Amino acid sequence: MRVRARVAYHGAPFHGFADNPGVPTVAGVLNESLGRAVGEPVAVTCAGRTDRGVHALGQVVSFDVPDGTDLGTLARSVNAQCGPAVFMADLVVAADDFDARFSATGRTYRYRILNHSEPDPLLADQSWHVPEPLDLEAMAEAGRYLLGVHDFTSFCRRPRTGRAVEPSLVRRVEALSWIGPDGEGVLVLEITASSFCHQMVRSIVGTLVAVGQGQRSAADIPAVIAAGDRQAAGRPAPPHGLVLWSVRY
Amino acid sequence: MRVRARVAYHGAPFHGFADNPGVPTVAGVLNESLGRAVGEPVAVTCAGRTDRGVHALGQVVSFDVPDGTDLGTLARSVNAQCGPAVFMADLVVAADDFDARFSATGRTYRYRILNHSEPDPLLADQSWHVPEPLDLEAMAEAGRYLLGVHDFTSFCRRPRTGRAVEPSLVRRVEALSWIGPDGEGVLVLEITASSFCHQMVRSIVGTLVAVGQGQRSAADIPAVIAAGDRQAAGRPAPPHGLVLWSVRY
Repeated sequence: MRVRARVAYHGAPFHGFADNPGVPTVAGVLNESLGRAVGEPVAVTCAGRTDRGVHALGQVVSFDVPDGTDLGTLARSVNAQCGPAVFMADLVVAADDFDARFSATGRTYRYRILNHSEPDPLLADQSWHVPEPLDLEAMAEAGRYLLGVHDFTSFCRRPRTGRAVEPSLVRRVEALSWIGPDGEGVLVLEITASSFCHQMVRSIVGTLVAVGQGQRSAADIPAVIAAGDRQAAGRPAPPHGLVLWSVRY
Repeated sequence: MRVRARVAYHGAPFHGFADNPGVPTVAGVLNESLGRAVGEPVAVTCAGRTDRGVHALGQVVSFDVPDGTDLGTLARSVNAQCGPAVFMADLVVAADDFDARFSATGRTYRYRILNHSEPDPLLADQSWHVPEPLDLEAMAEAGRYLLGVHDFTSFCRRPRTGRAVEPSLVRRVEALSWIGPDGEGVLVLEITASSFCHQMVRSIVGTLVAVGQGQRSAADIPAVIAAGDRQAAGRPAPPHGLVLWSVRY
């Protein structure tokens, strides 16, 4: 039977989500612990393949287990094997054709910036430290240009497919908002799209922060999008500020 | 000349603060990086010797460096060598008799509890996960019995001194308050005392949480104090929820 589950994890101990024999990955520890629990090989599919260092609180996975498997027992077994860096919850039996990746209709990510003159060792592996003051109004204005349907080629690490026709990098950004900063200088970007191409959130954050630092203007963003060239956008923000927050089905 | 500085650190990579040859400690990396920067051996003294896994945002250290050492350059050198797990700031020249430990008149610690049915991998190494609902009113009432001057023998891991007269474990708790829980279930105990004996905050937290879980009553606390016996108090809370928050001089 097919199972759907939510997974939270700290990205630091892993070389990303995707299974990669010989290195610790989130899929690797999930497959291994699920397989040990049910007594046969299990291979999880995820809604968003996070890169090395990226975290998740609302990742969703699907996988097959023998009919009749008790999901409460399965969750306890997986969590006993994978904790505390990984936590699996909300296991339910899904339709046979449910696929965590292809059935998803939207993904929300959060990116955390520590905008304070001093770094904070307790946030070092879960935020990007930007010590300079940021022009929040300009960053909000720049973000509004990204809303809607665009070709995000300028903001994506294009996969090398080798195909004659490259896959589309057109995406719909449904929502983009800044939360904070709170009293400790923590500023969060929340962004929702139908789906994201590779490094898209990090490239958007890098570009918007460059606007906030005055290195480029908010009004430049339409031209950055139109360029269809990765060199036009800012450098991607580091992975450890990024959290896959939730997935919509 | 004597220097005073504030130090923040993540406790996870270290076997506690105190220098201990052969294992990574906060004092070890500070001594090594300061020594490399000034070209002679340096030995830091700290306000509160934190245990393995305990964090600090407001630890204070004192140490001697050659007269005329530029403190801005020294801070940059130390931070380049020690980051991102350790950060040193606010370096000032202190009086020759200033001692980070003996000159301190008060210490404030914060202890973070994640009081939520689910663990959070992003908080796993900086909070104690207590999934059961807690009776916050009973915990606040229990805390009030600890205010003021008491012999905290029941809440301390007594040092083995081998001396005929054991050192006093009488301390003055000046303030104790609960902050939160916030929307994510994070509940913080803030506690200030002239000084703390070993494992005192963690033993207090363990005892107050036992009250919150209904395992003991708030009204029992005076008897726990009076017992002068470590078995009378609750088990110490785990170290990774604890943060040395600030030191008063």
